[in-house]
Amino acid sequence: MAKETDVYMKSWIEVSGNSDFPLQNIPFGIFKTPGGPARAATRIGDTVVDLHAMAMKGFFDGLNIDHDLFGRDTLNALIAIGKPAGRALRLRIAEIFEQSNPELRDHPGIQKDILFPAGSVQMQMPVHVGDYTDFYSSIEHATNVGIMFRDPANALLPNWKHIPVGYHGRSSSIVVSGTNIHRPKGQTKADTAEFPEFGPSRQVDFELEMAFITGRKTELGQSVSTEDAEDHIFGMVLFNDLSARDIQKWEYVPLGPFLAKNFGSVISPWIVTLDALEPFRVPGPTQEPTVLSYLRTEGDHNFDVQLDVLIQPENQPEQLVCHSNYKYMYWNLAQQLAHQTVNGCNINVGDMYGSGTISGPTPDSLGSMLEIAWKGTRPVKMADGSERKFINDNDTIIMRGYCIKDNLRIGFGEVKTKILPATS
Amino acid sequence: MAKETDVYMKSWIEVSGNSDFPLQNIPFGIFKTPGGPARAATRIGDTVVDLHAMAMKGFFDGLNIDHDLFGRDTLNALIAIGKPAGRALRLRIAEIFEQSNPELRDHPGIQKDILFPAGSVQMQMPVHVGDYTDFYSSIEHATNVGIMFRDPANALLPNWKHIPVGYHGRSSSIVVSGTNIHRPKGQTKADTAEFPEFGPSRQVDFELEMAFITGRKTELGQSVSTEDAEDHIFGMVLFNDLSARDIQKWEYVPLGPFLAKNFGSVISPWIVTLDALEPFRVPGPTQEPTVLSYLRTEGDHNFDVQLDVLIQPENQPEQLVCHSNYKYMYWNLAQQLAHQTVNGCNINVGDMYGSGTISGPTPDSLGSMLEIAWKGTRPVKMADGSERKFINDNDTIIMRGYCIKDNLRIGFGEVKTKILPATS
Repeated sequence: MAKETDVYMKSWIEVSGNSDFPLQNIPFGIFKTPGGPARAATRIGDTVVDLHAMAMKGFFDGLNIDHDLFGRDTLNALIAIGKPAGRALRLRIAEIFEQSNPELRDHPGIQKDILFPAGSVQMQMPVHVGDYTDFYSSIEHATNVGIMFRDPANALLPNWKHIPVGYHGRSSSIVVSGTNIHRPKGQTKADTAEFPEFGPSRQVDFELEMAFITGRKTELGQSVSTEDAEDHIFGMVLFNDLSARDIQKWEYVPLGPFLAKNFGSVISPWIVTLDALEPFRVPGPTQEPTVLSYLRTEGDHNFDVQLDVLIQPENQPEQLVCHSNYKYMYWNLAQQLAHQTVNGCNINVGDMYGSGTISGPTPDSLGSMLEIAWKGTRPVKMADGSERKFINDNDTIIMRGYCIKDNLRIGFGEVKTKILPATS
Repeated sequence: MAKETDVYMKSWIEVSGNSDFPLQNIPFGIFKTPGGPARAATRIGDTVVDLHAMAMKGFFDGLNIDHDLFGRDTLNALIAIGKPAGRALRLRIAEIFEQSNPELRDHPGIQKDILFPAGSVQMQMPVHVGDYTDFYSSIEHATNVGIMFRDPANALLPNWKHIPVGYHGRSSSIVVSGTNIHRPKGQTKADTAEFPEFGPSRQVDFELEMAFITGRKTELGQSVSTEDAEDHIFGMVLFNDLSARDIQKWEYVPLGPFLAKNFGSVISPWIVTLDALEPFRVPGPTQEPTVLSYLRTEGDHNFDVQLDVLIQPENQPEQLVCHSNYKYMYWNLAQQLAHQTVNGCNINVGDMYGSGTISGPTPDSLGSMLEIAWKGTRPVKMADGSERKFINDNDTIIMRGYCIKDNLRIGFGEVKTKILPATS
């Protein structure tokens, strides 16, 4: 079995101290250079590394990975090589870029075909998402929503502590960071109105989430146990599950959210592997009452990922509105995947599974404007004097995520999207 | 513009009077012969016609369709050629097989590479389904469910007559007719129990549905009007939306059905084009109150498709349990697609949109066992003396659909699946 990269190993590519992408990260993404095709990449510091070019130049010979897999416009086929081969690839990349290794370091003529400044490339959707599920696994978020919309005395619904509640979402409208989204139009109905009206949503919101992406498929009828779940998970991204609260309120009973959620969902471009997140495992919250046996897990399946949400009004500075953490999740990713498949539902490589809004226990850790401004009753004061109950046109929403421990920082970069006015 | 095929045109391939597949149908599917690759086909009578072989032999020269599109394992790329090219292809096929045309009729040596008895081939999933939405568009079904589970006096929820209510479903577990499905396991909770239990569902049900498949994509941010909707729809299939009622009951509040619906959904293998259904247009029910303007339609968008559901216990004859009709749909397919996209949600070629359970106004036209046996209070008596409240292990569920008018019968064939015992 391959050895994990050394925490203290450094690259001959410059990596600043607060970079999300040291040699211990080696995430995977898809990028384009101007006029070039989409192809696979990793990132070290502020440098994007063309993995297809490296494969073609023979740097991965001996790993037995078809060069063509690096030249596709999604990572699905590359991810499907499996965990052991994927680990060997990450270690080989780390080896090549380790500061004492001259094989590429001392060949600037070859480097120019492989290394690109991050600012000069365009990141693409890293995977083709076959199916997308969104869970609802933060107890703080579910409780807050229950208090606001249902019964404060019974905020959590009866099934919540037994089931990692989730629902199927729309795959087609998942887009990569940097894609701007028009304010959706739809039906809303005021409580006092007899009939619904049609127009732009007045309550566009973000939801701070993370999502995992599967790297191994199953057949219909098979289930994945909690023990085997992480073997089926390739890595994680940041996920902004944009939501139109007024549309949601009118449409969601009895079959769940639909147009309120499928007008655009935005992910960060780099998939950070579970292997890279290994040092940041932490225990999850105690689950009481005890969960059914198919949902029980041993060991630590939460991850200490610090999460920031910032709003940047047009031509204004960014303003932090939330600092939360993925470690708060009540249901962990192994439980989510075991639940998804316990009935025999099959999964494919490239499926995406959102965590649900990640709210923490403190007022500064709420993962949506709905909660931050508490249904509009506690507007957020912006630096320019304006207020936000939800997201305004031309506001940019930025989410960042990173783990820090023992001088090692592994991050996700950011997911960024501007809300454009509704189309006319 | 191409002329539609003549109702009275006959084929030199034998077509019995009650066949679903006369020369006026020309549906599209994907098939395999033993040892052969998956490829595109149509069907005339009981004969499956290899469209890839026809293309390779030059029968479609002049249509300007890449031969390779007929040799794929899904129809997605072929469907994407668009309606005018697709119409020209159907007309050319009809021309070749018209009784007076000798070009293939008189060449049995060529026929043997093109024509296969339907019983000798294996039908495959016709498309790769990118996204799948299930609507809830039968007023009779929604009313019945409301009476059973909510308030008989207010059976329809307030949004139902304003919104073609729908939700996103799982694409990965949509399979083709003939695929058998294991009874799902999951959480259920008796009303009297304190905690849920885990085990095989006791209430596996069918839902009689039809589904349309899109043939044209849009970009994120675009909407499709009701006027343009049918230009984006390639055709339709029969759809058995298998459901586990006991799992659904415990999981579905507040985010909708999830594991109760994603353990297997089964479609008929032949996509019948909207062009073939043209003679069977009928008006839909009056919509009162008037719907919002983005949902208004002109002309007839319902189709008179007779639908049968039969249950066949192991080694027993088939027994009819439902005779319904797609014409009962309150919301039509143009309204469904306009609603799906009104917020800018993008669609792709090969998306599937289920109608929701198609119940009619009479007791013999209820589209699910839940309604037929009315929550178990009116069990169905089977020929062998047994009773059904839901579906038993080893019961086969068969759905058939067909249109008949002026001596023209256009049908969908059938969708058939056996419920196997839960896996151990």
